[in-house]
Amino acid sequence: MENKKGFHVAVVGATGAVGQQMLQTLESRDFPVSKLTLLSSARSAGTKVSYKGNEYIVEEAKPESFAGVDIALFSAGGGVSKELAPHAVEHGAIVVDNTSAFRMSENVPLVVPEVNEEDLKKHNGIIANPNCSTIQMVAALEPLRKKHGLSKVIVSTYQAVSGSGAAAVEELYSQTKAIINNEEHEPKILPVKGDKKHYQIAFNAIPQIDMFQDNGFTFEEMKMINETKKIMDMPDLQVAATCVRLPVATGHSESVYFELEAGGVDAQEIKDILKDAPGVVLQDDPENQIYPMPADCVGKNDIFVGRIRKDLDNDKGFHMWVVSDNLLKGAAWNSVQIAESLIKLELVK
Amino acid sequence: MENKKGFHVAVVGATGAVGQQMLQTLESRDFPVSKLTLLSSARSAGTKVSYKGNEYIVEEAKPESFAGVDIALFSAGGGVSKELAPHAVEHGAIVVDNTSAFRMSENVPLVVPEVNEEDLKKHNGIIANPNCSTIQMVAALEPLRKKHGLSKVIVSTYQAVSGSGAAAVEELYSQTKAIINNEEHEPKILPVKGDKKHYQIAFNAIPQIDMFQDNGFTFEEMKMINETKKIMDMPDLQVAATCVRLPVATGHSESVYFELEAGGVDAQEIKDILKDAPGVVLQDDPENQIYPMPADCVGKNDIFVGRIRKDLDNDKGFHMWVVSDNLLKGAAWNSVQIAESLIKLELVK
Repeated sequence: MENKKGFHVAVVGATGAVGQQMLQTLESRDFPVSKLTLLSSARSAGTKVSYKGNEYIVEEAKPESFAGVDIALFSAGGGVSKELAPHAVEHGAIVVDNTSAFRMSENVPLVVPEVNEEDLKKHNGIIANPNCSTIQMVAALEPLRKKHGLSKVIVSTYQAVSGSGAAAVEELYSQTKAIINNEEHEPKILPVKGDKKHYQIAFNAIPQIDMFQDNGFTFEEMKMINETKKIMDMPDLQVAATCVRLPVATGHSESVYFELEAGGVDAQEIKDILKDAPGVVLQDDPENQIYPMPADCVGKNDIFVGRIRKDLDNDKGFHMWVVSDNLLKGAAWNSVQIAESLIKLELVK
Repeated sequence: MENKKGFHVAVVGATGAVGQQMLQTLESRDFPVSKLTLLSSARSAGTKVSYKGNEYIVEEAKPESFAGVDIALFSAGGGVSKELAPHAVEHGAIVVDNTSAFRMSENVPLVVPEVNEEDLKKHNGIIANPNCSTIQMVAALEPLRKKHGLSKVIVSTYQAVSGSGAAAVEELYSQTKAIINNEEHEPKILPVKGDKKHYQIAFNAIPQIDMFQDNGFTFEEMKMINETKKIMDMPDLQVAATCVRLPVATGHSESVYFELEAGGVDAQEIKDILKDAPGVVLQDDPENQIYPMPADCVGKNDIFVGRIRKDLDNDKGFHMWVVSDNLLKGAAWNSVQIAESLIKLELVK
């Protein structure tokens, strides 16, 4: 980055799965940090966390914790964001919030830098980071929309358990071990922590992510639908989603059907557009069995796209398979990327 | 069954995963067997198999093995069916073939009894059992088509490894164990036995089932497309499929989007139709987290449907989640069910 000035960065939820990835990403990106404040719930306060070889003690997040902070990266649950983000803004910080607390608020930009970086200019102190499953899909669709328009999206997801937090990953592994060893196991977290029933995730597929709404869709599915329309600024785009949890630790996959506005486009052109798209890596060579898989995406910032083919009935329809690390581009990396865009656009002083 | 006459039944591939399920199904259905001939490759010949408490020795399948056989259930690979099924027919047997060898042959009925039992009357000695992923989908769609017409289907599958045979299931479990114990493992079977590359299936999702065709679709995807049109006798139905292998031993799941010809239907009516549909069990109560899952379907003959909801943009569009035991309704049970239909319709002497 050109800007040599350092910024006072706060990470709220520093001990969580995404918070840890945020710190690693700030470090690997050599983000211009002049001061680092690590915050968490009272329960995790006192935890020691290392950053660039130095040890930091995590403090309890309070309204007054944000004095002097330039950029506050929130990832400690919607309740914490709702309570503390306004205080951070009052203290002059710009908040990049990784929870769903403000995503659909009218005056809060919901940003995937490859898609709508310019929306950052409209911010009022808070910028929302979209849902993990939304981010990777819109980043793959946007370059296609730009060139040929987009009218319809139908997505079925294959989502990893780390989207439910570190305890869910632990449940996946301990449950898998128990089943393999023919031991008893009692699901306690998945599909949704705090919901009435819990089901086995090992060697299973659970068609529920987040709670159900009255219309039969889950909140996760409605997030994909509503956030996609907002990020792409296409309120009339037809979007439908079915979200499914898999026994995969990290890496969300998506089977995406989409219809362009223009006809007469072939699969090769779709591949050519995505090959040059920002943040996207094309992995599409069926003859050599090259296609994206969650096991290959872990630890990478990119969005991997493959299995691109034209629908056999609809001249405007296409199918593709989109995979990305849900903790990175789906969360930590997109948040840090937003912070980098804020600096580039001189929106943070 | 009313018919008290017994039949001479041959099972070809008696030692395989599906063959074993066929024997269990014949036994549990108390199928009228007067004589049982168990056949296999030369390699498995001599294996002892029990049926209704008696021990049978599996013999090598040869052209002359079918003398006196009334019904021959084939599930030993397409090559074996192509070679031996015509000999079985010459000997006067009716063949129910669970491979893809004859599925798209014009003079071979492709039958799911709940959908097109009447097509059995057109048989010329061979009846084909459809692909596992096709069967459960068409059985759920047919009652809806009957009432409201059907114009479009887009399916994304979540398929179990037992569709690739018992060795693939063994690979899933031994590989999972190795990963959990931090040991080396080398994939040798999945995604497709005999293809150039093999990938880890444990804690992963592989978007390849069967080999690729030149159009970018896999053979599995084209089976779902072509077989659906044939079984439903709807050559102009728009069907598209994306088939994905999961770390699940048994039980295929499908995220199905479909469009009716009629508008104005609501989700409740779809549920009401499926509640009374033959072979289908409705499991759809989001408030109580009731929906089908592969872990729950194992060992059951039914097709489980849930997550039914109307599309938010298209008055004719709906989404549903369909789960079934791929070795039973997807293979062994559908084959035995065809044999029962042949008896009921007096098509076997």
